[in-house]
Amino acid sequence: MTVRLVSALGSSAATADCFSDLATLRHMLRFEAALAEATAAAGLIPKRAASVIVKACDPSLYDPAPLAAAARRTATLTVPVVKALTERVRQRDVKAADYVHWGATSQDVIDTAMVLQFGEALPPLLKALDGIVTALARLARKHRATPMLGRTLLQPATPLALGQKIAGWASDIDRAKRRLAESFAETQIVQFGGASGSLTALGPAAERVMKGLARQLKLTLPPGPWFTQRVRVAALAQDCALVVGALAKASRDISLMMQVEVGEAAEPSGPGRGSSSTMPHKRNPVSAALILSAAARAPMLAATIVAAMPQEHERALGGWQAEWPTLSALVECLGSAVEAMAEVAGGLVIEPDALQANMDAAEAAVLAERATFLLAAKMGKHEAHALVEKALAKGGSFIEALGRLEKELADEAALLGYSPKFVDRLLADLKRR
Amino acid sequence: MTVRLVSALGSSAATADCFSDLATLRHMLRFEAALAEATAAAGLIPKRAASVIVKACDPSLYDPAPLAAAARRTATLTVPVVKALTERVRQRDVKAADYVHWGATSQDVIDTAMVLQFGEALPPLLKALDGIVTALARLARKHRATPMLGRTLLQPATPLALGQKIAGWASDIDRAKRRLAESFAETQIVQFGGASGSLTALGPAAERVMKGLARQLKLTLPPGPWFTQRVRVAALAQDCALVVGALAKASRDISLMMQVEVGEAAEPSGPGRGSSSTMPHKRNPVSAALILSAAARAPMLAATIVAAMPQEHERALGGWQAEWPTLSALVECLGSAVEAMAEVAGGLVIEPDALQANMDAAEAAVLAERATFLLAAKMGKHEAHALVEKALAKGGSFIEALGRLEKELADEAALLGYSPKFVDRLLADLKRR
Amino acid sequence: MTVRLVSALGSSAATADCFSDLATLRHMLRFEAALAEATAAAGLIPKRAASVIVKACDPSLYDPAPLAAAARRTATLTVPVVKALTERVRQRDVKAADYVHWGATSQDVIDTAMVLQFGEALPPLLKALDGIVTALARLARKHRATPMLGRTLLQPATPLALGQKIAGWASDIDRAKRRLAESFAETQIVQFGGASGSLTALGPAAERVMKGLARQLKLTLPPGPWFTQRVRVAALAQDCALVVGALAKASRDISLMMQVEVGEAAEPSGPGRGSSSTMPHKRNPVSAALILSAAARAPMLAATIVAAMPQEHERALGGWQAEWPTLSALVECLGSAVEAMAEVAGGLVIEPDALQANMDAAEAAVLAERATFLLAAKMGKHEAHALVEKALAKGGSFIEALGRLEKELADEAALLGYSPKFVDRLLADLKRR
Amino acid sequence: MTVRLVSALGSSAATADCFSDLATLRHMLRFEAALAEATAAAGLIPKRAASVIVKACDPSLYDPAPLAAAARRTATLTVPVVKALTERVRQRDVKAADYVHWGATSQDVIDTAMVLQFGEALPPLLKALDGIVTALARLARKHRATPMLGRTLLQPATPLALGQKIAGWASDIDRAKRRLAESFAETQIVQFGGASGSLTALGPAAERVMKGLARQLKLTLPPGPWFTQRVRVAALAQDCALVVGALAKASRDISLMMQVEVGEAAEPSGPGRGSSSTMPHKRNPVSAALILSAAARAPMLAATIVAAMPQEHERALGGWQAEWPTLSALVECLGSAVEAMAEVAGGLVIEPDALQANMDAAEAAVLAERATFLLAAKMGKHEAHALVEKALAKGGSFIEALGRLEKELADEAALLGYSPKFVDRLLADLKRR
Repeated sequence: MTVRLVSALGSSAATADCFSDLATLRHMLRFEAALAEATAAAGLIPKRAASVIVKACDPSLYDPAPLAAAARRTATLTVPVVKALTERVRQRDVKAADYVHWGATSQDVIDTAMVLQFGEALPPLLKALDGIVTALARLARKHRATPMLGRTLLQPATPLALGQKIAGWASDIDRAKRRLAESFAETQIVQFGGASGSLTALGPAAERVMKGLARQLKLTLPPGPWFTQRVRVAALAQDCALVVGALAKASRDISLMMQVEVGEAAEPSGPGRGSSSTMPHKRNPVSAALILSAAARAPMLAATIVAAMPQEHERALGGWQAEWPTLSALVECLGSAVEAMAEVAGGLVIEPDALQANMDAAEAAVLAERATFLLAAKMGKHEAHALVEKALAKGGSFIEALGRLEKELADEAALLGYSPKFVDRLLADLKRR
Repeated sequence: MTVRLVSALGSSAATADCFSDLATLRHMLRFEAALAEATAAAGLIPKRAASVIVKACDPSLYDPAPLAAAARRTATLTVPVVKALTERVRQRDVKAADYVHWGATSQDVIDTAMVLQFGEALPPLLKALDGIVTALARLARKHRATPMLGRTLLQPATPLALGQKIAGWASDIDRAKRRLAESFAETQIVQFGGASGSLTALGPAAERVMKGLARQLKLTLPPGPWFTQRVRVAALAQDCALVVGALAKASRDISLMMQVEVGEAAEPSGPGRGSSSTMPHKRNPVSAALILSAAARAPMLAATIVAAMPQEHERALGGWQAEWPTLSALVECLGSAVEAMAEVAGGLVIEPDALQANMDAAEAAVLAERATFLLAAKMGKHEAHALVEKALAKGGSFIEALGRLEKELADEAALLGYSPKFVDRLLADLKRR
Repeated sequence: MTVRLVSALGSSAATADCFSDLATLRHMLRFEAALAEATAAAGLIPKRAASVIVKACDPSLYDPAPLAAAARRTATLTVPVVKALTERVRQRDVKAADYVHWGATSQDVIDTAMVLQFGEALPPLLKALDGIVTALARLARKHRATPMLGRTLLQPATPLALGQKIAGWASDIDRAKRRLAESFAETQIVQFGGASGSLTALGPAAERVMKGLARQLKLTLPPGPWFTQRVRVAALAQDCALVVGALAKASRDISLMMQVEVGEAAEPSGPGRGSSSTMPHKRNPVSAALILSAAARAPMLAATIVAAMPQEHERALGGWQAEWPTLSALVECLGSAVEAMAEVAGGLVIEPDALQANMDAAEAAVLAERATFLLAAKMGKHEAHALVEKALAKGGSFIEALGRLEKELADEAALLGYSPKFVDRLLADLKRR
Repeated sequence: MTVRLVSALGSSAATADCFSDLATLRHMLRFEAALAEATAAAGLIPKRAASVIVKACDPSLYDPAPLAAAARRTATLTVPVVKALTERVRQRDVKAADYVHWGATSQDVIDTAMVLQFGEALPPLLKALDGIVTALARLARKHRATPMLGRTLLQPATPLALGQKIAGWASDIDRAKRRLAESFAETQIVQFGGASGSLTALGPAAERVMKGLARQLKLTLPPGPWFTQRVRVAALAQDCALVVGALAKASRDISLMMQVEVGEAAEPSGPGRGSSSTMPHKRNPVSAALILSAAARAPMLAATIVAAMPQEHERALGGWQAEWPTLSALVECLGSAVEAMAEVAGGLVIEPDALQANMDAAEAAVLAERATFLLAAKMGKHEAHALVEKALAKGGSFIEALGRLEKELADEAALLGYSPKFVDRLLADLKRR
């Protein structure tokens, strides 16, 4: 467990591990090892040196604490890491120490390490999102024609199928997830430009080294270094926030439906899940708390990355250095939200009695529009409105007060209108995409 | 000109016009006219009524001022607009007035109007972005092998080709633009759900009406209403900010190169362009001022939309109402930045003498890394470093101080390293996409 | 009415007027007139010229449209405004035209105009906020001991006095308002530095002119120009957002209490207020929609200003130009929220029956904690917990299920605990501050 | 060292320690210990139990890892912490275990712990800010009349005293710091309300316990609990961002002056400070990188807190849970920026030759405005402008080209205008405040 206590609600254990110190060192050293092999293969450094370097690229050999402190002296973590690696290599082979980090610059190491961290963190989340969409789609199909009270501006409105609400969640989560999958794929590229992006130090071997490096790291080779071309990174950040937003839409609804006065739905329970430190009776919407708190943070974390895009020249002063703490926090937000929703999607409890009772209690809201339209077709909207307003003013049962249309207004299928077909359309669209 | 003076630097005239009161009314009324025709075609309202309604859907008939004031009474602009339209229809045909806005809800009108505004505002901007990319690509090709001083953390670094810097700008603007083109296309959908998304009021004619409405408005019919499913809208917002960010990266560099002490580039001049109210000699980077100010605003405008995503139930309280002023400001930011960059991209002035002079003045920065690598290949990096540091400490001409490698260090092509080939790769990638 | 339709829900008419084109021109010209008088008094320009200039400083003489367009050519609205003013002066007196804008720079005009706009927009809002606090305090006092269901994480909790909830709103609105009043006062300063802040053009008369200018404009003279020292402006922006946030806290609660299933409170009604375009029965929380939408926008508008603080040298490129459209939108957000809350604070409808009914329905939530503590005092917390859990599991009336403490649990005053005294403390604190 | 490597550049070691797991546990347990003593003193729990509890409140007894994982099950860290504490107490004294966390709720513990963390983190930063202001004020005084080129929109403008630029930095850092000192002081309050803010569980002892608790923790007792009244917290967040912004303004200028082509200033050097992983000659503006990256993050972190203000009822769902990770990151940003500026303020290197050389090279920019005003006083602005423009067009030495005013334009004191007096005024204002 590598989450800090103050961030315990802002990350899942699995995602936090991808940004732990051990993982950071591991990925930085993977870059250095791959670089040693690629430069050796290109004849730039001795094979023996490469072999010694590769062996020293074991993250467990290094203590993160002094590295973090030293990073501030040079405004880059690479300098102390390369120094520590060089020292360790030197202990085994003085000459090999000369070939560490050959031709690379600090941002090559850090950007590539960050890309590799995304490569570990995001695929399980994308998979979990598929599971969430599938579970919600199944629930939507089940409630294709379950009527419930619609609500606009937190006030009762005409009814819709519960399935339409749930299919709406699934549709938007899926749409955001597909965007994220694409922008994630675009980040899976190596960063390699040397001091200012021209790979001059490598001479004619530049192309061979950069291809070898990408191959070693199983990353794509982009058309050029992207030290200050941050569209790919910013797009990933934005799409993380987009997915969190889509998950939070569902959580917002669920938390409102869970209010004891509404009682239409509940997050699944489990041992200790949702209990309170003082109130034995409580069952809190724990997943909603986690997801909505992620949604309170993710948009601004993403905006930080986008606002940092106008980066200076070949390597930025400030804008770039702001990215790593922000992106790690953002992906952890996403991890937290996905993990929390995965617990809910498959086990959301629906309370059919409450759905019906709330519709009954808001009979006027449910029926008034339909009554108006049915009457309007016969007598014009103006008179229809007047009749309906009069019935509403009477209070009590709206149907009785209206004194007509008893049959039509009791036709539940008609009340649902096109809602079940919207469910079908939304679910079909999920499959087609 | 419909820009407010306080926002004069934050919008282009053309984009501002798309969100003017006249445009807003025009699009809202286009919705009402199309709805009248679609409901008439479906037999829900009389053809004659539809015809009267369509005639009243002329934006010039309405005064925006009282509509804006009245909108606050109901928290929606639709209510006063529909009321004003109904009044106008009633004056011509009392019965027809009953059929105005048949089966629609206020958000149907506003979301569709917003979509139509995007449909007018964005295509010219996407086209202008293509022009910007093309112009920058041409310039990059021209400067494929023009050496310039690289700069990292605002300090001199090894050289690169000017073309690589410019191709980097083009590449990221193009990448962002392609994302925007896609997310824009996804927004070109009708919003139509009736009171709470079930189109109940339309009965069995629902499907026919919604299809007719989409056809009339030349919009796609989405699988369902998207009142509180805002991924499409949020994605558009984010991609607007992304394009602004990519433009601002180029502007940041240009404005730094325009510093009189650097003098490597200049925005094109023109009559009155960039002049000062007090200093007759000044030529200000006017486009950079506009673009960088757009970039200071766009990320937070986009974040506002993303943060508003967890919208309640079938229509949100607050989150939705925050979108229209924000999205219009955001698209206007984009319009301002695109218009400003379009003026620069084709006419950016390059000063070759300054490029060379700055390289000469920073000779050590330019040569030290390469010297180190050339020496290291012979004597190991450690000793090479020591020699180079010694030469640096001497000051004066670095080559003289080093006392060797005169020929190798004078080889300009070698100094540029892989940079010209990165230009080729970046430009090829632009075409392939 | 100068609000744009797309922003109709994002501004109040009165606040929007403060940032209208007419107001903008009026304030810019006030600066030019005051400058003419101050430079004339200091003997720098002829009295006659000043008099002609002052007469030409009538905003109704100028057409905003071409000014907005021209502003983009120089990235400042001052250039075309001064040019237009100079032309008008020249028509009356060729020589006087030479003395327009004497010694000032474009940012002098715009920053001072902005300050004067704040000076008109904010005092009525601060006053309205006092009214809101007073009205809420009165309501809190009235409900000093009215019990209601507490709710945490949207789930029922132990009860509190309604007055404590309302006093909490008042307390935080007042706290934020006091901050805003202070940061607003700090902005009421003239901006005057000339080309780059040294007032060189004025020679030895600099001090006399700057004092005269401040006096004319009834603004304070700051210790120096603040072209790129934006703490005062950023603090104002932040405090606007803070007040909106405090208002939105109250609105969030009210909107949740207005849910038909909860029914504990309602925004005051009025003719047409809160009505829907399709559903005749609806009464929407209109003020909450306006306030919560302001709260969705204000934090990011403020963040834009803060993020723009690292402004370059003596006048910024981009960061400064982003301020005016953002600050005007932000103050308008505040104006919209304050106006909306002013309608609610004095007329909030409380439903005592619903307050009681919801407490009764959540009897277990209301009583379990207290029962636990009462039992724990006798038998230890562990056993007490067990007893309470058993009673909760039985369902039905909690008191009956518990089979003891009937009297203690029926003591409503005890149930409210310290809540009424917290009301007293909060109200006393309001007065003391 | 408790900073994570990915955040190594985003926090200082000292500030990070204040939010470490050990510190978090320590403060949470301080609350529990103080509560035990206060409830014992009020006769609610046995003195013996309190004594056992206090002994168990030793943070080194607990392993953070399982606590973080468990926190997600209940959406609050307090539940597992209290459970672990209770277990430990039970092991020593079964009965005492019943009295742990008596009458408190989870948010009481976490908010108070957060407040205590602020209480450790901020005072040293406020003190360091005083040191920064003092050092800059001293430097400003020294350069009270050192002329330098002014720059607006990154272009040369009329000169000003270097001291005015530096006094401007000091003035705004001081202004922001004073706000922060005040808002920090307002956060030094205990949070104590019990389950929903009424302290019902404590019965008549409520007041005595809350006063005792505050006294134990050396915190002020606020007028009421502030579970969802977050103005104090949001104001602190905003003022942290404000200070970072003011520091970043200075850093922006310094980094621009450090450009090799400008060369007017440099951050102090030191062993290893600012070195590069590839370029031996480089000296990077390391502090600027740290400060500007803090400034890229802080505004959005603050906006997250402000946007979360509309918190639901008595304890929020999502908005509150977003605060802790955000506020800790924000205070760490501040810590990083303050530490970095503290290294610069006292040792900023000024290059007088470069200041002069840049003024000479931009002679026209320096002199043209003054020449215009001097001529205008004799011949009118129109003709003066024409003469100056003609001289500018000639190129070469501006004074020669102008052919007059040699003496006046050589008067350096006149060129500086009121600038040295602005230094005096700014420094006097610093003292007065």
